[in-house]
Amino acid sequence: MNIQSQVDLWFDDYNRRAAARLDAVPALRGLYEPVYYTISQHGKQLRPTLMLCGNQLFGGNPDDVREAAIGIELFHNFTLIHDDLMDKSPLRRGLPTVYSKWNANTAILSGDAMFSLAWQQMIAHQHTATPQVLQCFNQTATLVYEGQQYDMDFENLPQVSLDQYLEMIKLKTAVLLAGALKIGALYAGADANEIELLYQTGIDMGLAFQLQDDLLDAYGNTATLGKQTAQDIRDNKKTYLYIKALSLADNTQKEQLKTIFTHQDKSEAEMQQVLDIYSQLGIRQQTEKAIVEHTEQALSSLSKINTDEKRKDVLHNLITSLLNREK
Amino acid sequence: MNIQSQVDLWFDDYNRRAAARLDAVPALRGLYEPVYYTISQHGKQLRPTLMLCGNQLFGGNPDDVREAAIGIELFHNFTLIHDDLMDKSPLRRGLPTVYSKWNANTAILSGDAMFSLAWQQMIAHQHTATPQVLQCFNQTATLVYEGQQYDMDFENLPQVSLDQYLEMIKLKTAVLLAGALKIGALYAGADANEIELLYQTGIDMGLAFQLQDDLLDAYGNTATLGKQTAQDIRDNKKTYLYIKALSLADNTQKEQLKTIFTHQDKSEAEMQQVLDIYSQLGIRQQTEKAIVEHTEQALSSLSKINTDEKRKDVLHNLITSLLNREK
Repeated sequence: MNIQSQVDLWFDDYNRRAAARLDAVPALRGLYEPVYYTISQHGKQLRPTLMLCGNQLFGGNPDDVREAAIGIELFHNFTLIHDDLMDKSPLRRGLPTVYSKWNANTAILSGDAMFSLAWQQMIAHQHTATPQVLQCFNQTATLVYEGQQYDMDFENLPQVSLDQYLEMIKLKTAVLLAGALKIGALYAGADANEIELLYQTGIDMGLAFQLQDDLLDAYGNTATLGKQTAQDIRDNKKTYLYIKALSLADNTQKEQLKTIFTHQDKSEAEMQQVLDIYSQLGIRQQTEKAIVEHTEQALSSLSKINTDEKRKDVLHNLITSLLNREK
Repeated sequence: MNIQSQVDLWFDDYNRRAAARLDAVPALRGLYEPVYYTISQHGKQLRPTLMLCGNQLFGGNPDDVREAAIGIELFHNFTLIHDDLMDKSPLRRGLPTVYSKWNANTAILSGDAMFSLAWQQMIAHQHTATPQVLQCFNQTATLVYEGQQYDMDFENLPQVSLDQYLEMIKLKTAVLLAGALKIGALYAGADANEIELLYQTGIDMGLAFQLQDDLLDAYGNTATLGKQTAQDIRDNKKTYLYIKALSLADNTQKEQLKTIFTHQDKSEAEMQQVLDIYSQLGIRQQTEKAIVEHTEQALSSLSKINTDEKRKDVLHNLITSLLNREK
């Protein structure tokens, strides 16, 4: 069975049991319905897919990652519930966020409950790798919060460097992709050296992935994305595009960008002006170049891993396919 | 060394290291300072104390519970940070809550980070009991959220029965005390039967503890408690006192109570009227009676545990001392 089909089957089964539990304890619907609402939306399931990839890369047994694959997706979705509340985001995947569909308290508490459901998955499987898996999982969670903290801090900083930005998205996004790969490899009993190379593969893949997200926000298709485009500009988010633009802009453009990025409610003309400056500076091409670089870096790390070359195909294809994704 | 001194030493050491880490990464102060602010306040540390009690009851090695004892207190404090935000509580232990000292987003994210620090403690120690300990810890966390969900749901219910209320405080408060005792006993290798009796001890102790909290809110001393008294009445909280009063009130008293408990801003006269009705119905004595009953129930379960009788003294004294606590 291919990796995506296997992951889909696992989630179908999990969602079926989650729906049954929801019906079994109606008094707790308020707590668990937002969890079910979120996990049953079938996001990209990139992290579980990566975990199974990491496992198969070293000839592991898929059964070993079954629980943890769902656990890492539950964790990821829990962070989205809390992040959407903190960022006051109304939409995700074309649907209202938990915060906007219910309320702030529901987003807080159902998010917390979802994290415990994630842990339930992570501790369910007894394996010689379990202590290392739990360390990796918890360490990753901590780094993700640190990334979110930097992201929120950046809103109040007058200036953010490209290096600071890359460090932030590394923590907020890339470490979880890298952690998913690593946990899969740990369950397959891979050597520390190979795991380190795989982790680096995940980091660069994650950086490329987030830069692609930044790009899609400005240049993607609303219907495909399931959310409004150019939301980052509207929200004055200091994305790669904005920081790169500032670093290349002349004084007039810099003044214009900075001024518009102090406005809470932007006119359509102002939105267009930002996109025009991006266009004058070739920001789209610059970002695409950075995405290609990190993708090549990821593939280079992957190529150095000592394992059956044939087994690398799935991950190789996954990494290159992210280059062309539209959502 | 006595149990309280041992717990104090562990926390002194943990807090010293936490303070050093805070200084080492100034860029992450925004995330970790609220964690340090909360944990260094030295709450009652009842849960770590109970964990060590549960361990010593079966002749365990204190070193085995060192990490988990701090972990359970970190978890408890994380739930307080999120609860205070959800309840919009300005004060705890005489100090501003994280939510009011910083802001909502800080309370959410630093709370999440604190939960990961709790897990860091829980997974730090490798022991044959570790899988059971982690199951117990995570199951307990889930039940605590379910309790908080019921608590929030109760605000919007026209009527809550005493049984519903006791189930809610069992989940929100008692299971964590019981879980602390159980984890201590697991690390000491106690038998399942004895652990079950100890868990029941913890549940009844926890119920008595929460009823005492309800009582202290209405009749305690502001300075001793570190928060305003009668806050539950002010907040229209359906506590044991209120539910018991409704169950004993005549129609006139019932109308008065229900009407006053719809008002968001109560006059001093209304506050006094509630306390007068409580007084007419002997609510203070009724609550004290329930506290004594659960305390006796806890002591009865403790007495049935098969272990060296001398070892029971510490827990026995702790349970009875809670009867007379003033904060």
